[in-house]
Amino acid sequence: MSGIRATGVASGIKATRAKDLVLIVCDEIATAAGTFTSNKVKSAPVLVSMERIKSGKAQAVVANSGNANACTGEQGLNDARRMAEIAGDELNISSELVLVASTGKIGRTMPMDKLESGIKVAVSQLSYTGGHEAAQAIMTTDTFQKEVAVKFDIQGKKAHIGGMVKGAGMINPNMATMLCFMATDVSIDQSLLQEALKTAVDRSFNMVCVDGDMSTNDTVIILATGKAGNDKINQHNDDYNIFLDALTYSTTKLAKMIAKDGEGATKFIELQIKGAKTEQDARISAHAISRSPLLKCALFGEDPNWGRIMSSLGSSGIDMDQNTVDIWFDELKVVENGITTGFKEESAKDVLKKSEYNITINLKVGNAQATLWTCDLSYDYVKINIV
Amino acid sequence: MSGIRATGVASGIKATRAKDLVLIVCDEIATAAGTFTSNKVKSAPVLVSMERIKSGKAQAVVANSGNANACTGEQGLNDARRMAEIAGDELNISSELVLVASTGKIGRTMPMDKLESGIKVAVSQLSYTGGHEAAQAIMTTDTFQKEVAVKFDIQGKKAHIGGMVKGAGMINPNMATMLCFMATDVSIDQSLLQEALKTAVDRSFNMVCVDGDMSTNDTVIILATGKAGNDKINQHNDDYNIFLDALTYSTTKLAKMIAKDGEGATKFIELQIKGAKTEQDARISAHAISRSPLLKCALFGEDPNWGRIMSSLGSSGIDMDQNTVDIWFDELKVVENGITTGFKEESAKDVLKKSEYNITINLKVGNAQATLWTCDLSYDYVKINIV
Repeated sequence: MSGIRATGVASGIKATRAKDLVLIVCDEIATAAGTFTSNKVKSAPVLVSMERIKSGKAQAVVANSGNANACTGEQGLNDARRMAEIAGDELNISSELVLVASTGKIGRTMPMDKLESGIKVAVSQLSYTGGHEAAQAIMTTDTFQKEVAVKFDIQGKKAHIGGMVKGAGMINPNMATMLCFMATDVSIDQSLLQEALKTAVDRSFNMVCVDGDMSTNDTVIILATGKAGNDKINQHNDDYNIFLDALTYSTTKLAKMIAKDGEGATKFIELQIKGAKTEQDARISAHAISRSPLLKCALFGEDPNWGRIMSSLGSSGIDMDQNTVDIWFDELKVVENGITTGFKEESAKDVLKKSEYNITINLKVGNAQATLWTCDLSYDYVKINIV
Repeated sequence: MSGIRATGVASGIKATRAKDLVLIVCDEIATAAGTFTSNKVKSAPVLVSMERIKSGKAQAVVANSGNANACTGEQGLNDARRMAEIAGDELNISSELVLVASTGKIGRTMPMDKLESGIKVAVSQLSYTGGHEAAQAIMTTDTFQKEVAVKFDIQGKKAHIGGMVKGAGMINPNMATMLCFMATDVSIDQSLLQEALKTAVDRSFNMVCVDGDMSTNDTVIILATGKAGNDKINQHNDDYNIFLDALTYSTTKLAKMIAKDGEGATKFIELQIKGAKTEQDARISAHAISRSPLLKCALFGEDPNWGRIMSSLGSSGIDMDQNTVDIWFDELKVVENGITTGFKEESAKDVLKKSEYNITINLKVGNAQATLWTCDLSYDYVKINIV
């Protein structure tokens, strides 16, 4: 995107010498918004970035993989601040304008010497076309690069959103972390940018479940340069809605990629809950179902075990009646009013053997709904996570 | 136990022809109490037994494995009532005095013809020494029989508690169910029996986690014959406490056996949370930690990944401060005030390679505590549950 340079380099934090350092820099100070893990155990870079984003301004993001800098105490906080300081010094900007993020093993102090030389190399390699390299450098064992680029019109001006994410498909099993960096050239008030980001994240990243484990390092940051030339969005008008739609589209695209690349996953499942009493009920039950190891193993085995869906629904604590539940695998209705439709096992297997399909549940006790993206639980999930 | 006959037979519900039908009968009407799954999706026998136990009286329990009779609608309820009726007719007692329980695949109607002939055979085989056979018949793929027998003195009289349980180690993966049947000869008021059972279950079965999936069929029943000859316990006196202690000891013994026999488990872990603000916080965090697939895989891999414990703690939503957390593997302190003690990896591996060990966590924000029993997540868990 014009006005934004990026790069990704190998600093040596990862023993494999794979790329592990990302630098994203705006030509000018950008409007910034972020959402961070709600885990009460937060990594040092999350604590530092949460503090800095309060200003609503940022010019750069420096992030590393290979070390989470979490559960590292005072030393970790100093290291996270120093990481920003090194980048700020090299870029000739205030370190207060540098946001930081880390992902990797919890509990180890950062190798600051490697980080320092890595940041210097990164600064020398910054490029307006370096986004792909940055997206590579936040990959850990993701099996594919996760980027999105969206163009849309706002007040007749061409506007853009670009983003990258890592997460959920990791050979180093200790990196149970999602990082997402986004940029847009839209001109927008900071509080509206934050509100739009929170809304988009709630509907996308917060509706992805690989294994139900919440990271200490989850970070989503968006930088808005204002270069699109639109009049600044400063109220909940049509322009705001256009931007929110484009942003939600972007984060949803990235969120789906995380589930598709889930650790050891062989299936990508879109789970839709309909007819819930409240949206919260729909979300809670979707999360409960997608977290069930029993169901996830059955999906891996391509077994149409709808009883495990019923069981998870019932234990999720939502307002429901077991005698009104309908369940579909794609277009095949397997449960009506809580009991089997007498569907053919073969027809169900035809759906479940696909690598992507939908599970739809209608609770028929209200009108609220939610959609979540998840995956199965395979031998490879265990293999990836035993060390 | 005197005054109670039992047996276990093969009725043919299981295709393997393994024992699948349990019958337990008191010579006289007993005081009865029960606790049942809190899942909003409840099996038909759970609904029927919950209704009948309100009378506080029962004389027999008939239970089957191989079919859960859950999500079977009106037909299922009729079948569950009919199951009690057949047993009542054969035993010449009111079917209202017969409690029912089932475990197995969800969503299939009961093969009533097999059940009927099985119950007739069971009645003909009832024996005062048939407890072991009954304990065998509720086994599914449990790798060992789970029974407990406790003797204690009450008012100078010899009193007894006997119990059996099944659960958590199943070759038929669809039987994610815990059933427990207990008997005592203590004479006790029904409401106190119910209260004691609830307290004991809360401290034992409700503190076992294999995979975090809650069954539609969980059932714990206790029958009290009053044959011990003690004056009826009808207040919260010393006798009540003696009984509660004996009962809690019994249910805890059985609960630990479930975790030890967890599906695919290679490790048995006693997880103790200390220093929590409230007992609820201690229980919630223990459950959150023991449910983490990431941590369970690390325990299987014998990897001292305390970061996953910190991460689960933080995401459990309890009142805590990441900077006061201490963690031990057995006697080895690995975390102090939220950061590593610098322990030797080798020393941690020495603990983690054992088949049984303790994980202790001191939150240092209060005085409440809780203990939970859990296991690891291995390739075999996936293997057992893919069909």
